[in-house]
Amino acid sequence: MRPTGRLHLGHLHGVLQNWLRLQEAYECFFCAADWHALTTCYESPGGIPADTEEMVLDWLAVGIDPERATVFVQSDVKEHAELHLLLSMITPVSWLERNPTYKEQQQELKERDLATYGFLGYPVLQAADIIIYRAHKVPVGVDQLPHVELTREITRRFNYLYGETFPVPEAMLAEVAKLPGLDGRKMSKSYGNAIFLSDTPDEVRRKIATMITDIERPRKSDPGDPENRCVAFNLHRLYVAPDRRREIVEACKAATLGCVPCKKELAEAVVRALAPIWERRTALGDDREGLHRLLRRGAERARDEARATMEQVRSALWSPSARSG
Amino acid sequence: MRPTGRLHLGHLHGVLQNWLRLQEAYECFFCAADWHALTTCYESPGGIPADTEEMVLDWLAVGIDPERATVFVQSDVKEHAELHLLLSMITPVSWLERNPTYKEQQQELKERDLATYGFLGYPVLQAADIIIYRAHKVPVGVDQLPHVELTREITRRFNYLYGETFPVPEAMLAEVAKLPGLDGRKMSKSYGNAIFLSDTPDEVRRKIATMITDIERPRKSDPGDPENRCVAFNLHRLYVAPDRRREIVEACKAATLGCVPCKKELAEAVVRALAPIWERRTALGDDREGLHRLLRRGAERARDEARATMEQVRSALWSPSARSG
Ligand code: SF4
Ligand code: SF4
Repeated sequence: MRPTGRLHLGHLHGVLQNWLRLQEAYECFFCAADWHALTTCYESPGGIPADTEEMVLDWLAVGIDPERATVFVQSDVKEHAELHLLLSMITPVSWLERNPTYKEQQQELKERDLATYGFLGYPVLQAADIIIYRAHKVPVGVDQLPHVELTREITRRFNYLYGETFPVPEAMLAEVAKLPGLDGRKMSKSYGNAIFLSDTPDEVRRKIATMITDIERPRKSDPGDPENRCVAFNLHRLYVAPDRRREIVEACKAATLGCVPCKKELAEAVVRALAPIWERRTALGDDREGLHRLLRRGAERARDEARATMEQVRSALWSPSARSG
Repeated sequence: MRPTGRLHLGHLHGVLQNWLRLQEAYECFFCAADWHALTTCYESPGGIPADTEEMVLDWLAVGIDPERATVFVQSDVKEHAELHLLLSMITPVSWLERNPTYKEQQQELKERDLATYGFLGYPVLQAADIIIYRAHKVPVGVDQLPHVELTREITRRFNYLYGETFPVPEAMLAEVAKLPGLDGRKMSKSYGNAIFLSDTPDEVRRKIATMITDIERPRKSDPGDPENRCVAFNLHRLYVAPDRRREIVEACKAATLGCVPCKKELAEAVVRALAPIWERRTALGDDREGLHRLLRRGAERARDEARATMEQVRSALWSPSARSG
């Protein structure tokens, strides 16, 4: 995951809940991809280290377990850069240019000078990040599928040229509920419509109070349609118990429940659910030295794996040289 | 220098003699750029490690002194890959595409699938190779000037974005006498017209015997014009003492000296001059373990410098992070 700053409920339900399941079932590597953040932020990268730490704090707070999974920062494992360089030698420029997200993002972020060599090579670095751990599965959203496809193509090309070295990784699509933000658009930091994991209880209450409900129900006396028209109700689905939710639906449809008390109740449910996350986050955030220690340990574990892979890569690539070793 | 196999007299007089002078006057880093060799040889890189060793043996044989200069193999210093990755983030693709040698080489080597991402980024890796040692000067031939100019642009851009970190290196043009090969074309391994530093004395004698002389002088009785028309005479200039050379010029012009004895004499002069090089090369080549030790020591020295630079790079790039250190 790229460090873009503090995470919000969209990340929690879209990605992190999935990671929590994965860490139970698989050997997982969770990588804070700070070098990737440079592809779009190279003009002012000063905030990336702090963003990286905040993001990792959020991971840990929701329950990512650094004893079980390997949690580390990309730039702490230089082997990613070495493999990236080697993969760059076998990746046709045309594969990168036809990458749909390449042209898209260039359009979207036109104001920044994005036509850099590194931006074009984003999927090459991503391929290195994945296969350096001989990964079999990559948990991604639909929008990342073309990148995983490119990783697969690059991996197959390496194996074809130098002999079977890497497993060809598979995308693992999570059925992600796209969580709307306060204003009904997709929840996103840049839209200013997000509830962050690091918000205080009062911030959460204030934000939910401003959340859009059923716009075709200007007055309490108008019957509502929570399941089809109420933005806030997407949070009800996640935070309010089914029994109580059914009562709310009925009362809203019967025009006996107003949005203000309804969202107050919702806010309290969200606050209750986030309380243990906040608790952990505060404890972790107060112990920066512990966080750094934890990331150093994660980097060591990642590096051990990456080094073992690079040994294999080098002996596949070059004919056995007496010098190595 | 890219390892393209054994070196020949063209390298000796074009590059290595210059390096010998430089190592007296400067702190020098001589890098066997094996990753660069991948940009054009990625389909069959198996020979690169052996080519690299042969090339370094040639360097040492002619007098490059690993006590005085830092002699190392690029892929032994992973920091080049890290800096390459960081520089890739700030280098516009357009700078690379307009690089004159990019399109040229793509034309020339069309049969190989050269349109790779790494081939496009060749000058980015070269920039990393140079500035990671905070180099002030880069000894190059005229054909490499555009690459040095690109290195300078990338360096200036880094310094502009993140603060003065690197000296902007300057090209150092050697006045290179282009040495013709046996057939009069530029001496080159691929033309099969080269006299290699690792040839035996008899190979040198045979090769010089086949060397083109003055083609307007089919018979000994025709007066020759050594200084303007004789290909072999380019070697006379380098290997025959001035007094004797003057006598040869006169005898050739007077049609009293035949090409066969003239080139025999030349061959003996070349063999005499190369004898100490051969002696050293044999001794060095017989002690591979010594060569590997020497390259490991060189890599350690290079790595120390590269690491110190990367510390500066990281603190310039990221805001100070407590995690580093
Ligand atoms: S009462 Fe509740 S469910 Fe109904 S529209 Fe308002 S906020 Fe939505
Ligand atoms: S005699 Fe010697 S210098 Fe004259 S043309 Fe022949 S090889 Fe050249």
